[in-house]
Amino acid sequence: MSKNIVSFGEVMMRLQVPGYELLTQANNLQYSFSGTGVNVASAMTKLGHRGYLVTKLPDNPLGDAAISFLQRLGIERDFITRNGKYIGMYFLENGFGQRSSRVTYTNRLESTFNTADISDYDLDSIAANTDVIHFCGISLAMTDKVRTSMKTLAKLVKEKGGKVCFDCNYRPSLWDGGYEEAKPHYEDMLSLADIVMMNEKDAMYILGMETEKTEREEQLQELIPKVAEKYHIQTIAGTHRGINTDNTHSLKGYMYTAEEFVFSRNITFSVYDRIGAGDAYTSGILHGELSDYTPEKTVEFAAAAGMLACTIVGDTPMSTEAEISAAMSGTVGDVKR
Amino acid sequence: MSKNIVSFGEVMMRLQVPGYELLTQANNLQYSFSGTGVNVASAMTKLGHRGYLVTKLPDNPLGDAAISFLQRLGIERDFITRNGKYIGMYFLENGFGQRSSRVTYTNRLESTFNTADISDYDLDSIAANTDVIHFCGISLAMTDKVRTSMKTLAKLVKEKGGKVCFDCNYRPSLWDGGYEEAKPHYEDMLSLADIVMMNEKDAMYILGMETEKTEREEQLQELIPKVAEKYHIQTIAGTHRGINTDNTHSLKGYMYTAEEFVFSRNITFSVYDRIGAGDAYTSGILHGELSDYTPEKTVEFAAAAGMLACTIVGDTPMSTEAEISAAMSGTVGDVKR
Amino acid sequence: MSKNIVSFGEVMMRLQVPGYELLTQANNLQYSFSGTGVNVASAMTKLGHRGYLVTKLPDNPLGDAAISFLQRLGIERDFITRNGKYIGMYFLENGFGQRSSRVTYTNRLESTFNTADISDYDLDSIAANTDVIHFCGISLAMTDKVRTSMKTLAKLVKEKGGKVCFDCNYRPSLWDGGYEEAKPHYEDMLSLADIVMMNEKDAMYILGMETEKTEREEQLQELIPKVAEKYHIQTIAGTHRGINTDNTHSLKGYMYTAEEFVFSRNITFSVYDRIGAGDAYTSGILHGELSDYTPEKTVEFAAAAGMLACTIVGDTPMSTEAEISAAMSGTVGDVKR
Amino acid sequence: MSKNIVSFGEVMMRLQVPGYELLTQANNLQYSFSGTGVNVASAMTKLGHRGYLVTKLPDNPLGDAAISFLQRLGIERDFITRNGKYIGMYFLENGFGQRSSRVTYTNRLESTFNTADISDYDLDSIAANTDVIHFCGISLAMTDKVRTSMKTLAKLVKEKGGKVCFDCNYRPSLWDGGYEEAKPHYEDMLSLADIVMMNEKDAMYILGMETEKTEREEQLQELIPKVAEKYHIQTIAGTHRGINTDNTHSLKGYMYTAEEFVFSRNITFSVYDRIGAGDAYTSGILHGELSDYTPEKTVEFAAAAGMLACTIVGDTPMSTEAEISAAMSGTVGDVKR
Amino acid sequence: MSKNIVSFGEVMMRLQVPGYELLTQANNLQYSFSGTGVNVASAMTKLGHRGYLVTKLPDNPLGDAAISFLQRLGIERDFITRNGKYIGMYFLENGFGQRSSRVTYTNRLESTFNTADISDYDLDSIAANTDVIHFCGISLAMTDKVRTSMKTLAKLVKEKGGKVCFDCNYRPSLWDGGYEEAKPHYEDMLSLADIVMMNEKDAMYILGMETEKTEREEQLQELIPKVAEKYHIQTIAGTHRGINTDNTHSLKGYMYTAEEFVFSRNITFSVYDRIGAGDAYTSGILHGELSDYTPEKTVEFAAAAGMLACTIVGDTPMSTEAEISAAMSGTVGDVKR
Amino acid sequence: MSKNIVSFGEVMMRLQVPGYELLTQANNLQYSFSGTGVNVASAMTKLGHRGYLVTKLPDNPLGDAAISFLQRLGIERDFITRNGKYIGMYFLENGFGQRSSRVTYTNRLESTFNTADISDYDLDSIAANTDVIHFCGISLAMTDKVRTSMKTLAKLVKEKGGKVCFDCNYRPSLWDGGYEEAKPHYEDMLSLADIVMMNEKDAMYILGMETEKTEREEQLQELIPKVAEKYHIQTIAGTHRGINTDNTHSLKGYMYTAEEFVFSRNITFSVYDRIGAGDAYTSGILHGELSDYTPEKTVEFAAAAGMLACTIVGDTPMSTEAEISAAMSGTVGDVKR
Repeated sequence: MSKNIVSFGEVMMRLQVPGYELLTQANNLQYSFSGTGVNVASAMTKLGHRGYLVTKLPDNPLGDAAISFLQRLGIERDFITRNGKYIGMYFLENGFGQRSSRVTYTNRLESTFNTADISDYDLDSIAANTDVIHFCGISLAMTDKVRTSMKTLAKLVKEKGGKVCFDCNYRPSLWDGGYEEAKPHYEDMLSLADIVMMNEKDAMYILGMETEKTEREEQLQELIPKVAEKYHIQTIAGTHRGINTDNTHSLKGYMYTAEEFVFSRNITFSVYDRIGAGDAYTSGILHGELSDYTPEKTVEFAAAAGMLACTIVGDTPMSTEAEISAAMSGTVGDVKR
Repeated sequence: MSKNIVSFGEVMMRLQVPGYELLTQANNLQYSFSGTGVNVASAMTKLGHRGYLVTKLPDNPLGDAAISFLQRLGIERDFITRNGKYIGMYFLENGFGQRSSRVTYTNRLESTFNTADISDYDLDSIAANTDVIHFCGISLAMTDKVRTSMKTLAKLVKEKGGKVCFDCNYRPSLWDGGYEEAKPHYEDMLSLADIVMMNEKDAMYILGMETEKTEREEQLQELIPKVAEKYHIQTIAGTHRGINTDNTHSLKGYMYTAEEFVFSRNITFSVYDRIGAGDAYTSGILHGELSDYTPEKTVEFAAAAGMLACTIVGDTPMSTEAEISAAMSGTVGDVKR
Repeated sequence: MSKNIVSFGEVMMRLQVPGYELLTQANNLQYSFSGTGVNVASAMTKLGHRGYLVTKLPDNPLGDAAISFLQRLGIERDFITRNGKYIGMYFLENGFGQRSSRVTYTNRLESTFNTADISDYDLDSIAANTDVIHFCGISLAMTDKVRTSMKTLAKLVKEKGGKVCFDCNYRPSLWDGGYEEAKPHYEDMLSLADIVMMNEKDAMYILGMETEKTEREEQLQELIPKVAEKYHIQTIAGTHRGINTDNTHSLKGYMYTAEEFVFSRNITFSVYDRIGAGDAYTSGILHGELSDYTPEKTVEFAAAAGMLACTIVGDTPMSTEAEISAAMSGTVGDVKR
Repeated sequence: MSKNIVSFGEVMMRLQVPGYELLTQANNLQYSFSGTGVNVASAMTKLGHRGYLVTKLPDNPLGDAAISFLQRLGIERDFITRNGKYIGMYFLENGFGQRSSRVTYTNRLESTFNTADISDYDLDSIAANTDVIHFCGISLAMTDKVRTSMKTLAKLVKEKGGKVCFDCNYRPSLWDGGYEEAKPHYEDMLSLADIVMMNEKDAMYILGMETEKTEREEQLQELIPKVAEKYHIQTIAGTHRGINTDNTHSLKGYMYTAEEFVFSRNITFSVYDRIGAGDAYTSGILHGELSDYTPEKTVEFAAAAGMLACTIVGDTPMSTEAEISAAMSGTVGDVKR
Repeated sequence: MSKNIVSFGEVMMRLQVPGYELLTQANNLQYSFSGTGVNVASAMTKLGHRGYLVTKLPDNPLGDAAISFLQRLGIERDFITRNGKYIGMYFLENGFGQRSSRVTYTNRLESTFNTADISDYDLDSIAANTDVIHFCGISLAMTDKVRTSMKTLAKLVKEKGGKVCFDCNYRPSLWDGGYEEAKPHYEDMLSLADIVMMNEKDAMYILGMETEKTEREEQLQELIPKVAEKYHIQTIAGTHRGINTDNTHSLKGYMYTAEEFVFSRNITFSVYDRIGAGDAYTSGILHGELSDYTPEKTVEFAAAAGMLACTIVGDTPMSTEAEISAAMSGTVGDVKR
Repeated sequence: MSKNIVSFGEVMMRLQVPGYELLTQANNLQYSFSGTGVNVASAMTKLGHRGYLVTKLPDNPLGDAAISFLQRLGIERDFITRNGKYIGMYFLENGFGQRSSRVTYTNRLESTFNTADISDYDLDSIAANTDVIHFCGISLAMTDKVRTSMKTLAKLVKEKGGKVCFDCNYRPSLWDGGYEEAKPHYEDMLSLADIVMMNEKDAMYILGMETEKTEREEQLQELIPKVAEKYHIQTIAGTHRGINTDNTHSLKGYMYTAEEFVFSRNITFSVYDRIGAGDAYTSGILHGELSDYTPEKTVEFAAAAGMLACTIVGDTPMSTEAEISAAMSGTVGDVKR
């Protein structure tokens, strides 16, 4: 059944050099608009839900272009506030083989979103219409204003009976004060969350939990139940991913719910655009939970969603439930005609 | 020595999203014109013959564009009739890795070609100037008018001393009535043909022949001689193809002629555009037969032609005899300068 | 105040050769989706209203792409039905100077929209949520099913208190039976309409009304009041347009309401893409009426909207109220920075 | 009735910077293949004749690309010889307003064509199949080998009953020795020609004829009859062209035949690509002569053909008889749909 | 004789929607790097001098791309400092006809350049190698740090015997405090300058000078000599420009030197890209002064340089002395080959 | 410490079909300018030195474009002479899988560079400002004039205390007389060189040295010391490269200096554009020598530079010392943000 999924987060303009040239060699850029919130809201729309975004965008042609792009993805514009002057941007140069992709940011902290006040958002209307609200650790790393908005919104939604989903998504480069600065804010969000995306590294590094295990999967099985218990979290899910020497990627998903672990198969696949795969996985978990899939089916579905997102141009997952289900069966087809 | 090769078939407009975007993400399309008949006639031109196409095209700018495109490929326009309003079209979205390519058709059955009458074609002139005429199972699946034209033309050419080549090319989605509807038409064409492209699956499914063998190659060796005998076919040829887990393709060709089988090596190669490889293989067989190659050389030549067609942009094979011969020797060269 | 504007009409795929090449010279196409209904719904969205489209689209990647495009324009997808296989298409080659632009259609009459039944649409929900519904003479020229849907919907909306707008938009090539075939259907729609877009030629040719006047403006002033009276129409509006020898266009708008004529200035301007200018004019009239502008302001606003639409890429008007108001003042600005 | 029109001349590769950038600013080029012979042969094909080209092209991928391009234009490849290594090229930077277009050549004199021997061409076959053969003054400026081929071919065709058309097309930059060097070669060609394209300036400067008149049209009327008489030329035709201050061009055609002058109207029009307009005019004259048009109709037809060529992308005229006839009536249409 | 021309100023990244789409419609951008300083330094390079830029650029891929672009223009990188994180950017949507071009800025005031300290520049080396240094009013509107750097550098160069050129270039949107805030800074720069670009409006509005004249040219002739006298300026020059109703632009240059006025003709021309025309005019004046042209020749040369800059893609003038001299003679040529 | 690196060599225009189409299928080309000298000078610039090119370019728009391109790469234009008419060009069609890339040249031997006289270059100024000068065997294969210039310049630089680097780079297609013709010229250059790029094949085939060893590495270890001794060469370096069946390439570098061999690891990597990898390796060796790296570090650095050059678009290496050092550590990173 179709639900109202609301994401909170920044919309960034992605300016990408087409092909494999460097900024220094090229003279044109392809642009699109993305962000974790955009990706999750849009992916849920493809899965049959209504996807909303809570964000603030500048009142100028760049903001107009962002809105058009979000609409194209099927995202509802009801909770988007317009005002201010700047949108965050990043430039992307595609890597090839041994040469990594490279991202260059503009001064994002002064974007309209990152300087927005809690009063800029229509809190009551948002809370009244939300089945699930999604937050992520990237927003948490931004400004005090953003953090305040996140915590306030999460509480409000919870009070009105909605579920809160939080994706830890820790980015070292965004926290000047490192784990120490981040920890209290992460604890606040974990305490408010029903569904959390994370793995054992988040538990060890952000939350400072300790283990004597040395294998990733053993660490995971020891630490995640402790996190769930401590912060009263219903479901925790995440992935272990790797880049293989033949340039394929591997992904194995897990979910811990009702005090049980389930794992997906470890799947290996070619990658066209790796950005957004994590958000596709999150969307798969949310859709499985909302559709009363078994945990086993949920985690396989989410892993297949993550894999397909890597075959799609751009940050934003575009696959339907039918397409993901077909990919779960796993044979590569020839031309479909 | 240069021969007149005539193909009968529909010209379709191919509208392809460049790169790996979906129709939903992109805003431009590359177009070309193709079809089995186009591919075979053009490929034979590259091999030193004169290639003609018997078809009908609308009398409007889309028909003009098709003609220009065919001329560019070197196909003679003498047997192309102009009139009517519509050309068949298909939209192609390129797959990547686990995501398959996707083809969307327009209403093809009402195209100028598929509604053309036998009287639209200059039968006498065609029959008088044909060394080999080529038909395919895709045309056979279209309309009664098309089927009538095919059988009439095949008979006429045969009477005038030309050879008839028929490529079974069975496409399940095109026959509403399935194998049962198709069988009598296939039998008519097989009875008229001197050279037939098929493999054991066609014998089993279309013609309903039975075997107790379970290996493809054993089935082939049992059934193909029976087909040749029953329908009085001089030469039958075809391929076994596979997609490997590392995204390369494999192809092994066979030819049955003078009651003997010959097989090519099983070759493995990277694929840029897989459409048209079968038509390249057919052209290789025809060229070998017309050039009095040994069967062994013919089948290796045809396999190399099929492989090279997969490295070429678009549906239509572009390789010369010299290029195919070089590829038969098989070492990947560095830059040629 | 924001209103719900609903357009009924076909969504067509526009496939345009970029620049000034012919289809015979080029190899790529830009695509978008448009139609009178699309243009009006989208234009009203830019003017601050909610724009809906009542249409039916195929359930395949072309339909998906159309939906994405409509969403990008800000059109609500609530009243769009999905099913069927084909979308109408047209190919556009840009003219230059003495060489006219050229449009080539595919077989549109079998599109999903033109074969849709009245039962495909959620009539009650549409009627309950409509402030103004817009129809046009192009749809009226299609099929009996489309005509039935138009008349049924118009009646229903009227019963529920909504306004009906009808744009005569007579296209000779679409009516095999000419004016005689068209007249009864036009009379049905005029009898149901509150706001009508037309000029004296429609009165003379479609409705067969007569006048002894020879000047266009005199004919207009004699015939339009008679039309308004006969069919009980509240407001009739339209334009006189001309192409000047220096390739600029001229446009003069008129509106007849409350038994009074008002005329805009005759404005002259450069044209980038002339398609959609009429729909922009219609939107300007609707917005003026809904915003209680004076007739004088409404007709100037509509004329400026029509002019600006000619400076915009694509069929669909993109200008806001502020931009149109600025253009009404009429000085060409330098770079705005 | 369809005739065999044969052009003799060099095929050059045109490498054009798209838009208005300089070579110094851009990084990509559009390429096509053209030349006076290509333009005339192709234009005659569009007018319903068979167009052949006598030329020599290198036996490498650039030669292959040239052949494909010529075939696309509908030109027959029967009289094209392949061998040698180089093709002439020119780079084109589009001018804008007060900034002129700029052409940069490669070392053309060593192209396969300009080093070809008369023995490279199949003279008998050409002569036997030619209704009209076309030469131009650009070829005449090249090398002794080319000049020999021209004169030999002209004589041969004439002997076999074909007509010879010669376009003076004097380019000062191509004759190091100026008019003095050129004159004897021009006289040879004029003596062999039945139809000549020239105007009074050619008579005065190349042939050294004198007049006391000062107006161009008076000079023309005095000198052209003398040329016709001296060299026994059946028909002489040409144009007076001008660039107006508003960037439009004007063209007035004339034809002198059967000792009578006829003039077209002086037409004024916008220009997209001015290269090839003269060749379109020539083709119009040839078509009029071959179709037994009246001189008046011929010269108007040729002028309209020249005008339309200026609205077409690339050097090569693309208009059909129907399109040129429509343009002769002269009203600019709106979108044709 | 070749001189060292040094410009001080910000390098901005220009991100332009190609063609005439809006940001809301398009999906790619062309980028280049420009600024008044860039334009003047580059233009002087084309005129045979060595052009340097004093600026500071971020030490990241965007800074690298800017450097590459400046080098391509021929600008020396010796005085460019690297450090910091951000580069100023603007997005440009091209207008058409009645629809103006639109510029959207990012938060420029925090760019590496606008936060650079005087100590970031190698003052001694700059001053020792400068024949003329150029500043502009846009930089003056930025930050206190920039203003300090400007005044310090100007003094230093003057002490070492170099000339100071200042272009008033007042942009209302950049001065929050309006003319009042700007005036003292302008007075400082005028006092330091040998050559000043301005017109009567700058005198009236920035400097608050008064006149009873109402015609622009009379105001100019009254006020400019007073400015020259008050601030001890050797040469003042500038333009009067207008946009005509047929979309052409007009430009008339003036120069006041040695207590005499000279004016160029009022020239009218088509415009491809109007940005940078003023900088081309400045460069023409500087080149005339450095080359000891007569004032009459200088002002005509500068006007022609300004006109040609409007026919060139991008902000930056690309014309050589020979090209500008040819344009001064003023006839529009046909294709140059 | 930054040194002055001077390369001597031809600048060629590279005209590449984008993607994988053939010249016969495409209609546009990307152009750039390259050559061994360009690649080495540019690569050294990225490594922190000043890179100069000694060459001659035509005085036309193609020469202007070449200069702009070289400047963009950071190459100093001080030693570039302008005059003459032609620039060497080559057309590149990208191969795919079993289909090799294909290069087609224009008549290069008459380029401005290959017809330049020693007197065209400012020998004294070059010699006075050179720390290292680089020559290559491709130039040596051109014309007597080029060979004279090479030997004269090498001697002069050596006399003034600069080092001479010579890259054998033997291309069979460029020497009509084969090894016999080449040998004396190679011996002249080897006698003048301090640093030489070659491997055992050059010793065996060009110099005619003999060995009874059959393994490449053994041959190398036997022959290279003999070469060093005979021609008094300080350092000899080179690579062994291979193309693997999975389309990756392998590269193992070696260096012989101070009578000792060092080898890099044998590294394997994906290849985007293989042209220019050898020049990157050369630049790595030169930079190591100039920076007093240990031989072990030098050869690993050079191998990593060669590998990275294969991941970069175009012929010319673009990697900095930091990027190459990072690649030496060898783990493929994920997106860098």
